[in-house]
Amino acid sequence: MEKDRIIILKGHIIFTPEAQRFAIYENSYLIACDGVICGIYDVIPEQYRGIPVCDYGENLIIPGFVDLHTHAPQFNQRGLGLDYKLLEWLNEYTFKEENKFSDPVYAAGVYDAFAEELLRQGTTRVAAFATIHRESSRILFQALYRRGIGAYVGKVNMDTNCPDFIKEDTLLSLQDTEKLLQEWAGNGLVKPIITPRFAPTSTRELLKGLGELALTYQLPVQSHLSENVNEIAWVEELFPEIKEYHRVYQAYHLFGQTPTLMAHCVHLSDAAVQSMAENGVVAVHCPDSNLNLTSGIMPVRKLLTAGVKVGLGSDIGAGHSLSMPQTVVKTIQLSKVMQVLDSQYEPLTLSEVFYLATKGGGSFFGKVGSFEAGYSLDALIIENHSAVQGLSPLERLQQFIYTGTAKDITERYIAGVRRAVFEAD
Amino acid sequence: MEKDRIIILKGHIIFTPEAQRFAIYENSYLIACDGVICGIYDVIPEQYRGIPVCDYGENLIIPGFVDLHTHAPQFNQRGLGLDYKLLEWLNEYTFKEENKFSDPVYAAGVYDAFAEELLRQGTTRVAAFATIHRESSRILFQALYRRGIGAYVGKVNMDTNCPDFIKEDTLLSLQDTEKLLQEWAGNGLVKPIITPRFAPTSTRELLKGLGELALTYQLPVQSHLSENVNEIAWVEELFPEIKEYHRVYQAYHLFGQTPTLMAHCVHLSDAAVQSMAENGVVAVHCPDSNLNLTSGIMPVRKLLTAGVKVGLGSDIGAGHSLSMPQTVVKTIQLSKVMQVLDSQYEPLTLSEVFYLATKGGGSFFGKVGSFEAGYSLDALIIENHSAVQGLSPLERLQQFIYTGTAKDITERYIAGVRRAVFEAD
Repeated sequence: MEKDRIIILKGHIIFTPEAQRFAIYENSYLIACDGVICGIYDVIPEQYRGIPVCDYGENLIIPGFVDLHTHAPQFNQRGLGLDYKLLEWLNEYTFKEENKFSDPVYAAGVYDAFAEELLRQGTTRVAAFATIHRESSRILFQALYRRGIGAYVGKVNMDTNCPDFIKEDTLLSLQDTEKLLQEWAGNGLVKPIITPRFAPTSTRELLKGLGELALTYQLPVQSHLSENVNEIAWVEELFPEIKEYHRVYQAYHLFGQTPTLMAHCVHLSDAAVQSMAENGVVAVHCPDSNLNLTSGIMPVRKLLTAGVKVGLGSDIGAGHSLSMPQTVVKTIQLSKVMQVLDSQYEPLTLSEVFYLATKGGGSFFGKVGSFEAGYSLDALIIENHSAVQGLSPLERLQQFIYTGTAKDITERYIAGVRRAVFEAD
Repeated sequence: MEKDRIIILKGHIIFTPEAQRFAIYENSYLIACDGVICGIYDVIPEQYRGIPVCDYGENLIIPGFVDLHTHAPQFNQRGLGLDYKLLEWLNEYTFKEENKFSDPVYAAGVYDAFAEELLRQGTTRVAAFATIHRESSRILFQALYRRGIGAYVGKVNMDTNCPDFIKEDTLLSLQDTEKLLQEWAGNGLVKPIITPRFAPTSTRELLKGLGELALTYQLPVQSHLSENVNEIAWVEELFPEIKEYHRVYQAYHLFGQTPTLMAHCVHLSDAAVQSMAENGVVAVHCPDSNLNLTSGIMPVRKLLTAGVKVGLGSDIGAGHSLSMPQTVVKTIQLSKVMQVLDSQYEPLTLSEVFYLATKGGGSFFGKVGSFEAGYSLDALIIENHSAVQGLSPLERLQQFIYTGTAKDITERYIAGVRRAVFEAD
């Protein structure tokens, strides 16, 4: 074994091999070879002796965060126009902002800042929407690739029910998508994902073409599902031949025929929940977005109990922050609101939601989000400047999640490579 | 008029003279004399010519934030133990932490960090609980006074239904309170407030004594009301002769006989709401705390409509952040949850909640929280590092509230005096 392929990190190692508990290894060594974890040891095994140790002392070593739903082009729009609900907000703000991405120079500036902020906040894997524009979508792939962030990037497709300035020709939309996915399909860390914006802005022809691309190239799919009651009614009106929102995607091979992310899933029938479980479709919970747009609350516990895979998303710009720790806090808080409404509803614990933000969401990327042997070394070093003396590593993690900032993250590793940010805070 | 008593700030001035709208004065001059605002002008009036202008260019000038409910000794406890609800959390974490404040050296360290963080986050006025300890409560007065923060500080009183190590002798509790309030009653910016922890930890004798102190010294009162359903049941059990929680305070002259703050007010009968309105009792909404401890949601709109005065509180350590902008965001978000539950419930707008966090809460301190003539010059200069080019001042304020950090606050004025922080971020 060549020694320069080995990395050894030392510190207080915390992660969630399962949702119900934190695994905590104080003053231990996390060892990886070629970016893949070999194990955790309290003493360095014989074969690794002599390899330099990155000793982080009293700092925490935790998995990088996974953001399963976000809109990179809405980075500049965070916090704006949040007096609107979904459909008005799309028309008044979002489509206008996304239109600016016809200019690759504008796109380069925003996507660079977006990628930098992701890394700063400790997000090491992301599934991101771009816009309809092929050239600026390519720039998003490149911006994430340059930073070494693990990503699925989707050029958005929409060819109906949106302003003309942002409406695609169906055939061109499919052709642009295919060109881009051919360019990036072979890349290791940044890969393409089929991305119809959502059912209402898609013709049947577009959905059909996208489903065929997903199957042909064996690519994953991301879209939105059942975010808002008006949106749901609209889908039922637009697709009268299909009985329920999720079945629109299903009918066109965009619902679990390949790995699929569906953001929001706030208002699902029991049949839809069951279908998600059966088809392995991942429900992505975006708490800030659902709050800001008055969409409702995803019943996360119910979906988990039904066997649906769940991950977390920042969903900027409807969400206002790329911070996954803050998304963890909001997820716990909303589960507590659910309990206020129904005392039988069991709130989510910190370990459960930390799991969703790491190993749970990470599973969409393969062996990602845990420190078990065989997992990718995606890790953050947490110094937690605000931490109080005398706390246990777990209490320090609690305090970082609730009160920490990007400044508390002093190092970021993705697939075993240390990645620097321009400005920690 | 002596020119060195005048301050002139120039920038984009934004505030809420009323809840329904922002007043916006671009590129204008905010002029104050002896810390009191004279007016806003687009050209400097003749009599102020020659006085140096603090020109903040494109930056925003907004009122300082007002935090009407927080527990200074729980500063180190933020983010810890939030799997518990109120009563368990008090016993497992809070009382143990507060017991450490029998040591003035420990208190000095925590209170200094607390005051620094308040200022850093742009909170210029605060109503704070200390602990039962007279000596360390004095240290909290001093820490806030040194920083020039406008404050009401309350030595906590509790003499029953709490662990022995933190239970006071009734008479001693009243004597300590009186000594401290005599020391600080004459001070301008940092003043005493009568602070029974809450009804369950108070004997009738204690409540009687505190009510008498409030009346004798004409001091305001702060406590907790109707936070949690178990707590409410407990109060009814402890005070069977009094029919409802708020009437316990009322019976002992602690409910509007002098200006009164009641934190939480989540579960109030219509009679209680009406009583608050009639007695001018301020309801302090603490959204993070209510979420973290699964307490419920204060129906802010309902209270406002009923004529109850409302302010906002960070309520650390049950809340995890001293940031009032984040408290504003959570307040809006929870009002949207209320609308999800009841489509007739009208969510709160940004201007309404900004008002609560400035002029609304500020009214407890006198003419505070607005930039109208006669108001105290409590102001923040906002640079908003993350702001996008081409936004209007109001959009930049939106973005600061939703996405900003302490780093975006570049200057802080309280009663006309510029106050520096040790570390902006």
